[in-house]
Amino acid sequence: MPKVPRPGKAPTSADVARAAGVSRTTVSFVLNDVPGSGISDATRDKVLAAVRKLGYSPNAGARALRAGTSNLVVYAMPRWPLGHAIDTLLERARDALAERGLVLIVHGDRKLTGMDAARAWAELRPRAILADTWRCTPESVELLHQHGVQTVVLVGEESVPYAPTVVFEQKRIGVVAVDHLAEQGHRRIAAIVPTGDLREPGELRYVGVVEAAADHGIELARVDMPFDHGAALALARGWALAADRPTAVFAYNDEFAALMLRALRDAGLSVPGDIAVLGVDDTPLCELVTPRLSTVALHTTSFAEMHVRVLMDLIDRTHGDGLPLIPEHEPLVVRRDSA
Amino acid sequence: MPKVPRPGKAPTSADVARAAGVSRTTVSFVLNDVPGSGISDATRDKVLAAVRKLGYSPNAGARALRAGTSNLVVYAMPRWPLGHAIDTLLERARDALAERGLVLIVHGDRKLTGMDAARAWAELRPRAILADTWRCTPESVELLHQHGVQTVVLVGEESVPYAPTVVFEQKRIGVVAVDHLAEQGHRRIAAIVPTGDLREPGELRYVGVVEAAADHGIELARVDMPFDHGAALALARGWALAADRPTAVFAYNDEFAALMLRALRDAGLSVPGDIAVLGVDDTPLCELVTPRLSTVALHTTSFAEMHVRVLMDLIDRTHGDGLPLIPEHEPLVVRRDSA
Repeated sequence: MPKVPRPGKAPTSADVARAAGVSRTTVSFVLNDVPGSGISDATRDKVLAAVRKLGYSPNAGARALRAGTSNLVVYAMPRWPLGHAIDTLLERARDALAERGLVLIVHGDRKLTGMDAARAWAELRPRAILADTWRCTPESVELLHQHGVQTVVLVGEESVPYAPTVVFEQKRIGVVAVDHLAEQGHRRIAAIVPTGDLREPGELRYVGVVEAAADHGIELARVDMPFDHGAALALARGWALAADRPTAVFAYNDEFAALMLRALRDAGLSVPGDIAVLGVDDTPLCELVTPRLSTVALHTTSFAEMHVRVLMDLIDRTHGDGLPLIPEHEPLVVRRDSA
Repeated sequence: MPKVPRPGKAPTSADVARAAGVSRTTVSFVLNDVPGSGISDATRDKVLAAVRKLGYSPNAGARALRAGTSNLVVYAMPRWPLGHAIDTLLERARDALAERGLVLIVHGDRKLTGMDAARAWAELRPRAILADTWRCTPESVELLHQHGVQTVVLVGEESVPYAPTVVFEQKRIGVVAVDHLAEQGHRRIAAIVPTGDLREPGELRYVGVVEAAADHGIELARVDMPFDHGAALALARGWALAADRPTAVFAYNDEFAALMLRALRDAGLSVPGDIAVLGVDDTPLCELVTPRLSTVALHTTSFAEMHVRVLMDLIDRTHGDGLPLIPEHEPLVVRRDSA
């Protein structure tokens, strides 16, 4: 049965001090790990034993009021679906922050932008914030700093002048994909832009596809489609009848590429003989379908590590002497059998 | 370039009151949406305009100190990899909480349990907490309530007596899978338990497999394996040579099922003729592989909706008159071609 809450009964640091037979200042020194406070190990152990016995939990809000900031680091949830890349980033960031006495929390609102977003994040008085570039303006970053946020790290398509940015360029994926297909001799290609949740990254990748196709003098067909076998089959059947069909398709990601493999086979076309298919992400799926999928690999683990390294570098020298070196992140084609 | 932070310069509610020409009490009534406070629309608009102009963000910590609790709802990040199910849960919960003026945040620590976990979550003085059952004890739930947490909702394999629990039974998946294979006439089956990150849910599903196999008098072989084509191929080759090989394999999830499809074909075995293969999750992958995958569907969207409904029901009648009705959640087999 749910207990009726009893707010106000929570033990205070005064209770801890009484139980341990020390002053409240000593309790505060121990709990905040104040360097040079000259607390003996025996005293520290007594305080920690009292904390455990009483079930004392410091109040992050009260601490933030005293210090002007809390020990929280806020990651603003990105708008794209959660998956392996974000999971890896959160895992690495959490461990690195824990070593510094900081706690990673994810702010669940995916929609707020600009000053509205900054106000919502600032309510938590975090030490640092990671967010997508498109959610922040120069004014909103300024507002965060005014509220005691010491470090703001952005991630996005392009670097911005008002905060350190880790660049993750969707557009570059489209360029790398088309460069590969051009090298393979393709002169007529199709590119899929997903409808629905993935439309936005799809558009960004397509910008790169358009640029690279122009560079190579490649004829380009854009296909907007949902993740749906019926839609893929209709497309494939159209191509089966067309003399001037594309000889390769850039399929946005590995799932769409696998969908196209199935639809092309169902329409009587062979891969890569009639049409080559190129995915993105290098997921385990690539090895499981027939023919095995060629793909553009994004190295999300090394990207996550790089992202965390930049964040820690900035946190460690909080008042910033310039930007850390932010390395470029280049996608690479993994060749298998489909393209 | 990163701005040097200027803590302490953040506008206060007194600044807002001055700019709007109203009292601080009026500002507080407007910002906290206090019912029956008799604020006119004109005054409310003046206050909100001043809030925007000054870039004022209320301090969640200060609010929590006054009220004994904050407007935060903490979701303790589960230990299993983030994916579609958790994404859906977060999305639905965020919207439902926002309607109630509450903010969803995800606590990034996946490892803390018991009193350590409760103390870490309590630091944020949240209004409500969602967590996995295995992370909580009766004492830790008590500690949360003492710190003003009004609602604690757990999710786990079994209901517990000390907090409302939404049951999501991994074991039941194993039972449903084996019941299906038994109905199809299989008397010798293999079940995969993944090594690595997915081992724990794999063990829970296997408990159900063992129980159902005993009920049906089915001969059972347990296979512990990583997600790796080499390992799958070695297994499949062994089966190709064995007269008493299993006639069906329960493959933990759709990815493992697809891996086995490929390995069995590479070893010269046909599916489902030589060996049937059953996955779990009903992912899009099921339609993309050959033969199309039969699977146990978990209805994660309806589970997420149910979970959120229980949470909101508890939040809406905060001081609880009994538990809401928590419906059972039954996995179902989706039959395609592989089993």
